[in-house]
Amino acid sequence: MVSGKHFITDPKTLVKDSLRGLVLSNPHLALDDVQKVIYSKDLAAKRQNQVTLFCGGGSGHEPAHAGFVGEGMLTASVSGHVFASPTSSQVLSCLRRIYAPNHGTLVVIKNYTGDVLNFGRAVERFKSECLNQGKPLPKVAMVVVDDDVGVVNPNDDDEGGVGRRGLAGTVLIYKIAGALAAQGGSLDQVKAIADYTISHTFTIGCALNAASVPGTGMPRSLKDNEMEIGMGIHNEPGFETREVEPADVLISKLINHIITSGPFKKTSGGKTSSRVILMVNNLGATSNIEMGLVTKLATEATRNAGFEPVRVFSGTYMTGLAMPGISLSLTLLPDSNTPEYKQLLDLVDQPAYCPGWINHAHTEDAGSTDDLAKGPTTHIKPASDSTWENVISQAYQNVVKEEPNVTHLDQVMGDGDCGQVLLSGATAIYEASKATQLPLNDPPAALARISSIVEDAMGGTSGIIYCLFLDGLAQQLRTLMSSKDFASLTPQVWGKAMLGALDTLYQYTTARPGHRTLIDALHPFADELSSSGNLQQALAAAQKGADSTAHMQPKRGRAVYVQQKDNLADAGAVGLVCVLKGIVGAL
Amino acid sequence: MVSGKHFITDPKTLVKDSLRGLVLSNPHLALDDVQKVIYSKDLAAKRQNQVTLFCGGGSGHEPAHAGFVGEGMLTASVSGHVFASPTSSQVLSCLRRIYAPNHGTLVVIKNYTGDVLNFGRAVERFKSECLNQGKPLPKVAMVVVDDDVGVVNPNDDDEGGVGRRGLAGTVLIYKIAGALAAQGGSLDQVKAIADYTISHTFTIGCALNAASVPGTGMPRSLKDNEMEIGMGIHNEPGFETREVEPADVLISKLINHIITSGPFKKTSGGKTSSRVILMVNNLGATSNIEMGLVTKLATEATRNAGFEPVRVFSGTYMTGLAMPGISLSLTLLPDSNTPEYKQLLDLVDQPAYCPGWINHAHTEDAGSTDDLAKGPTTHIKPASDSTWENVISQAYQNVVKEEPNVTHLDQVMGDGDCGQVLLSGATAIYEASKATQLPLNDPPAALARISSIVEDAMGGTSGIIYCLFLDGLAQQLRTLMSSKDFASLTPQVWGKAMLGALDTLYQYTTARPGHRTLIDALHPFADELSSSGNLQQALAAAQKGADSTAHMQPKRGRAVYVQQKDNLADAGAVGLVCVLKGIVGAL
Repeated sequence: MVSGKHFITDPKTLVKDSLRGLVLSNPHLALDDVQKVIYSKDLAAKRQNQVTLFCGGGSGHEPAHAGFVGEGMLTASVSGHVFASPTSSQVLSCLRRIYAPNHGTLVVIKNYTGDVLNFGRAVERFKSECLNQGKPLPKVAMVVVDDDVGVVNPNDDDEGGVGRRGLAGTVLIYKIAGALAAQGGSLDQVKAIADYTISHTFTIGCALNAASVPGTGMPRSLKDNEMEIGMGIHNEPGFETREVEPADVLISKLINHIITSGPFKKTSGGKTSSRVILMVNNLGATSNIEMGLVTKLATEATRNAGFEPVRVFSGTYMTGLAMPGISLSLTLLPDSNTPEYKQLLDLVDQPAYCPGWINHAHTEDAGSTDDLAKGPTTHIKPASDSTWENVISQAYQNVVKEEPNVTHLDQVMGDGDCGQVLLSGATAIYEASKATQLPLNDPPAALARISSIVEDAMGGTSGIIYCLFLDGLAQQLRTLMSSKDFASLTPQVWGKAMLGALDTLYQYTTARPGHRTLIDALHPFADELSSSGNLQQALAAAQKGADSTAHMQPKRGRAVYVQQKDNLADAGAVGLVCVLKGIVGAL
Repeated sequence: MVSGKHFITDPKTLVKDSLRGLVLSNPHLALDDVQKVIYSKDLAAKRQNQVTLFCGGGSGHEPAHAGFVGEGMLTASVSGHVFASPTSSQVLSCLRRIYAPNHGTLVVIKNYTGDVLNFGRAVERFKSECLNQGKPLPKVAMVVVDDDVGVVNPNDDDEGGVGRRGLAGTVLIYKIAGALAAQGGSLDQVKAIADYTISHTFTIGCALNAASVPGTGMPRSLKDNEMEIGMGIHNEPGFETREVEPADVLISKLINHIITSGPFKKTSGGKTSSRVILMVNNLGATSNIEMGLVTKLATEATRNAGFEPVRVFSGTYMTGLAMPGISLSLTLLPDSNTPEYKQLLDLVDQPAYCPGWINHAHTEDAGSTDDLAKGPTTHIKPASDSTWENVISQAYQNVVKEEPNVTHLDQVMGDGDCGQVLLSGATAIYEASKATQLPLNDPPAALARISSIVEDAMGGTSGIIYCLFLDGLAQQLRTLMSSKDFASLTPQVWGKAMLGALDTLYQYTTARPGHRTLIDALHPFADELSSSGNLQQALAAAQKGADSTAHMQPKRGRAVYVQQKDNLADAGAVGLVCVLKGIVGAL
């Protein structure tokens, strides 16, 4: 049993404080913090111009309910304590505030006894109040959402009984009824489309554990290998506890449970081919990467069951606090050639402006860009070149010879893989050269190719440092060789290109001379070569640089986390010198 | 140590599958599922018309990064494995696809070595590739976000070092740079505003536990009373583990940590009065109700520290899988009288159309509706009426007498509180009557008042059932008494009104005659009274109805969960009869 940890101060003020936070981060909302009513700031205009709508219920299901208040969805919401209905006085206060005298008001709630009775009583009190003031009976309608097909009360009968619970599908009713109200629908029309959506929406939940309640902690805990099917949004037990299954198996079962449930079959008339809206809901603490997977699997499972999800919504719509679980909802749509079908999709697609709803942006597909992503199709034309082949061979052989020394240095002052990684890169280049796979007649192209070989063969940070230098070098050479002043690739030209390549590398690493890395050998080599053009002097400068690392405090790279000892030189710098030695020796 | 449960199939395909789910639920997005690149479907137009932008990094931070691809924000994103950088080949493929030849492309990444090197190398490969094709050097810029002020690497120095990490503040850079690109800003301008926002944004994280990683589970667990300050988005340890504190204490400390951090002080120039953007981020598994509280507290703490949050964003922007934690980000704004200030707010306010960003809807406040919410101010005028006072008194005395019997019935077939609850309601009404607090000269008004007294005194389901009936009765009487045919309140008129009131009640409960509830007494009473107008006959019908419950299978109410035994009548029905007996006896 895990004790619940929370970001809380006083559980008693949590709901009110949380609603204040909602208003602070959503400038279109206002709060009556006595009655815990959230409403749209442009309420006065709404009351004049359209059917107003509100919802409510216990807290702990955020973004439901207050997070759906905004243009195109709800006008207001009223919140009870965590998992408890608001009182009829709170609801009455909300109703009084948002009632639209000319257009009327729709109340949308979930089917829980407390909500039905308290919201119902508020409606009746409001009617009495209006009549007692000598006003006409107000136009207020109430709809009760009962989308759950997980837990069906055994005492339910044809007359209804306790009935099914309201779950995340409720949000689709907010969306569709709210959109029609915003479009100017009458109270009768808005209620009718709400009723239609309620009777055609079916939800099932599933959780890997219950949720901890602020102030009281975990009400119960599933075992480490258990999940529960049909769990409610208030930690109510589901209808089955079973071992955690792979998500594909589980999601198929859940979709099939919906489709074979009595309410679904009754409504679909046994038809097994129809269009649906699919909503995948995060019950609070499912990671979003898993939500993506569940969305994919639920879409596929719905299709496999013969239904086509023409809209797929995935997000956090109605939670059970931070419950690690999900719910799936299907809304059966009318025949696709009817105006009702078009209307329903139109309403669901109409943008809403509230924090809880994720609008679908519909963008025309502007055509494939796959060819671009593949890159240039001009193939590299390998070519032989004895000088360069010799350079590569010598460098390789020198790495083979020196690898044990480099490995030793890295074992003492690093993680020990430097020698092997370097050898792996040198070997790959050597083999590509031997097999005549490199465009050696075009040095910039050859270097670009070698860079990719190095990335594949070496990996890790040191590999990509080499790559970035080689990429920069390739660019420098190409630019120098393209200029009209260019004569030939002298050592000095190489030196200049190497300095440019270091600038490229320095964009991506803060390692600089003096930090005890391969830069301590590479930078002096490039410096000396570009100024004197003398390869031997450059090599001597590199060697001197590598030697000097023996007395340096590591500031970057492999040795940062290791205590300096034995005055040993940096393995990376020594490794680079042995490559350079091979190259210079061959030229 | 909690073993991690997840909705997964194969951890190896999780990223790809999750991105498929994202595309299925966001019709404006397309997926290259080989390279794990998400891009806007209208990419071809974007490449023609504006600077394109992309981001990326390891997966597990959803909605970052792919969830921010859409109009007004990013053009594309590229995803690595969970918590691992994408390869340079993946990034290169993305860059090739979205590069805008006339406007250029901005790469926005977080400061992690793997990301910097792999994205950097992709940029350099792309440059080499363009040059090697004989094209000009492409216009590609890269910015690296390092907003963390929690964990500062001890090896960092003035030259940068490993640097600070990129956290949720990164999303503000996507937002602001993306908005300027959409407005037609040049690459230099877009990069400049990204650089400005990066250098002015500061974030700190805090978590109650690490997050379980799909496939490998919990890397480590905090103790039940511990939290960690500065925890990273990849479960990296923070700089301090301490006992869980009340949220107000914690959030103040976090805000103060930001404001007193070296980077913040350096940027703010020590000024302690400035406007800021505040972003409150859910690290994955914090309940949304707590997020509201944290948002309120963070806004207050920022104000208390002398900074004014002119925009407050609260949501799930960058997660560490399902980590129970939060992060707070502050962006220092330019002086409020500068055009730069106006521009920055304009960019952050510009709507974006992607699943991860919550647009702020700005609505004019249309004035207070508080007066409406308070309800009618016309006070009830209490009035004495000896007939009604006698009725109330007799009913009360009969309830006092019969309470032990009702309690007994409910103890055997219910939860035992029915008698006391009924007595509590009767007492409250009797006392209000004795104190002349009821408008007894106006029966509908008196009934409405009695209903509210009953709600306060009885509570629970049975109380509100009485209330709903009384509310309905008040409305019926008011309507009947307002009609021009109305002569006087005969027993038959009462009976008719009661039948109407039952219709009201039946809207909110499915209990009907035969279900073993108080309806079994109430309904026959109203029926008989409305047809015969004879009170004694009506009382007899009620008594008969109550007696008949002794042989009924409970279908609603108190006795549903109890085995029928001893052929006892329903406590609720018997209780109602004892009220009716008192009333009829007095008339």
